[in-house]
Amino acid sequence: MKPCGKDEAAPAAGDPWKECFEVAVQLALRAGQIIKKALTEDKDVSTKTSAADLVTDTDHLVENLIISELRTQFPSHRFIAEESAASGSKCVLTAHPTWIIDPIDGTCNFVHRFPTVAVSIGFAVNQELEFGVIYHCTEERLYTGQRGRGAFCNGQRLWASRETDLSKALVLTEIGPKRDPATLKLFLSNMERLLHAKAHGVRVIGSSTLALCHLAAGAADAYYQFGLHCWDLAAATVIIREAGGIVIDTSGGPLDLMSCRVVAAGTREMAVLLAQSLQTIHCGRDDEE
Amino acid sequence: MKPCGKDEAAPAAGDPWKECFEVAVQLALRAGQIIKKALTEDKDVSTKTSAADLVTDTDHLVENLIISELRTQFPSHRFIAEESAASGSKCVLTAHPTWIIDPIDGTCNFVHRFPTVAVSIGFAVNQELEFGVIYHCTEERLYTGQRGRGAFCNGQRLWASRETDLSKALVLTEIGPKRDPATLKLFLSNMERLLHAKAHGVRVIGSSTLALCHLAAGAADAYYQFGLHCWDLAAATVIIREAGGIVIDTSGGPLDLMSCRVVAAGTREMAVLLAQSLQTIHCGRDDEE
Repeated sequence: MKPCGKDEAAPAAGDPWKECFEVAVQLALRAGQIIKKALTEDKDVSTKTSAADLVTDTDHLVENLIISELRTQFPSHRFIAEESAASGSKCVLTAHPTWIIDPIDGTCNFVHRFPTVAVSIGFAVNQELEFGVIYHCTEERLYTGQRGRGAFCNGQRLWASRETDLSKALVLTEIGPKRDPATLKLFLSNMERLLHAKAHGVRVIGSSTLALCHLAAGAADAYYQFGLHCWDLAAATVIIREAGGIVIDTSGGPLDLMSCRVVAAGTREMAVLLAQSLQTIHCGRDDEE
Repeated sequence: MKPCGKDEAAPAAGDPWKECFEVAVQLALRAGQIIKKALTEDKDVSTKTSAADLVTDTDHLVENLIISELRTQFPSHRFIAEESAASGSKCVLTAHPTWIIDPIDGTCNFVHRFPTVAVSIGFAVNQELEFGVIYHCTEERLYTGQRGRGAFCNGQRLWASRETDLSKALVLTEIGPKRDPATLKLFLSNMERLLHAKAHGVRVIGSSTLALCHLAAGAADAYYQFGLHCWDLAAATVIIREAGGIVIDTSGGPLDLMSCRVVAAGTREMAVLLAQSLQTIHCGRDDEE
């Protein structure tokens, strides 16, 4: 009997989601191989919500592969995934075991062959994130986090930064694909605030997921973004928390996975300082109709 | 007899700077090993022109290693290097064979263990750039370009993007360590202009040199920066040109290596379009007293 999925009420002793985690790792590695191969090939690119919101055949191919494999192994599980959501599937996080998937995080990078591209697979039960698996396919770095079991990159334990001073921080953010005037104004206003707060530096690498992995690895001190989605956040949130870091809402309150905005940092002091420094707005919700 | 340096008037037939190039490659690899090891260790960090303009013992160690080795092998050659310049050495590009060195490009990344860090060694004779060697030490990617001989990354030929449409471009830039109000205003104004021009994306990775290598590799379509220095540009300029790309001044005129500003792109059309889109200012000169 499978320890998860086939009989959710009777998980194996110890880690009830061990098999799910191992399947996620294998799928992330398989998906990564497909993406890495496709990175150098010509692509059919379509747009979604804006001219900068791109999607390719590979996004669909990889998402379908991951979901069909998971559905076969864990037929009772639910799914929230970027391209399914773009096609109208609802994003509702229930108490059921739910996979939260971004088949290619950094699609704009992928289209341009800019080698900062990842597969992200998160898993939640009872609305609590249980594990996250992120594969940076061009660098062959596998980031994992399991609740209560630590965060790792290629087997090496990850620890987030202990920095508490914003003026000594390397801060990561993303523009995101939304380009309406209000979103652009917010992005520029917050960039200005951070530079005036004398942060050591601000980086924009084009993949929320991998930026959050850098944070978990202690290679940056803080991260914020408006307009991202639950599939950008789910897996990375577990990895950051297990590396000792903090993931909160831009209001300074608890993280709301569906609220399309986030602040993350190595320390609570830094997260709160950053949240206080930012202009914040309502960004819509992933679970809105 | 050494084909270059010891007797500059009698270079070997074929490639007169072959030995210099080979020495540069070996030194970049050696320096990269030192930087990679130091990346995970605690660092003594000092500041230079601003609280965000950082320098570490490793910057000095690596620069001294590179210059002392080159001086031993090529005693008549001249040197322009980041930390020597910060200590008051003049940056004057004469007709003499001149090495232009950034021991650690991305020092702020290096301090934060953010793995986007490179050694950059350029070489000019008669004020013409002859070759460039850039080593991305954490990813073990060696970028090289020799005038008339092509550009390569780990032996693979590089070709820049052929994109000519700014609204389909992935554009790279850097904030740089200067943080006076005029510089910050210019940075934000240009970021705004690019986003309003509907560029696919803007990335800021914290290393001018590696951003320019991405451009040479066709992983981005355009690059601009104000406030960078000749040691950020020298090696990368050869690599981009040999990959079929263009490096010009932000005014749209020819590159001035000492003018602390640059536009680069895969195509001339893109470079000119980008230059026209930007607000430009005089940024001082590396060769000013």
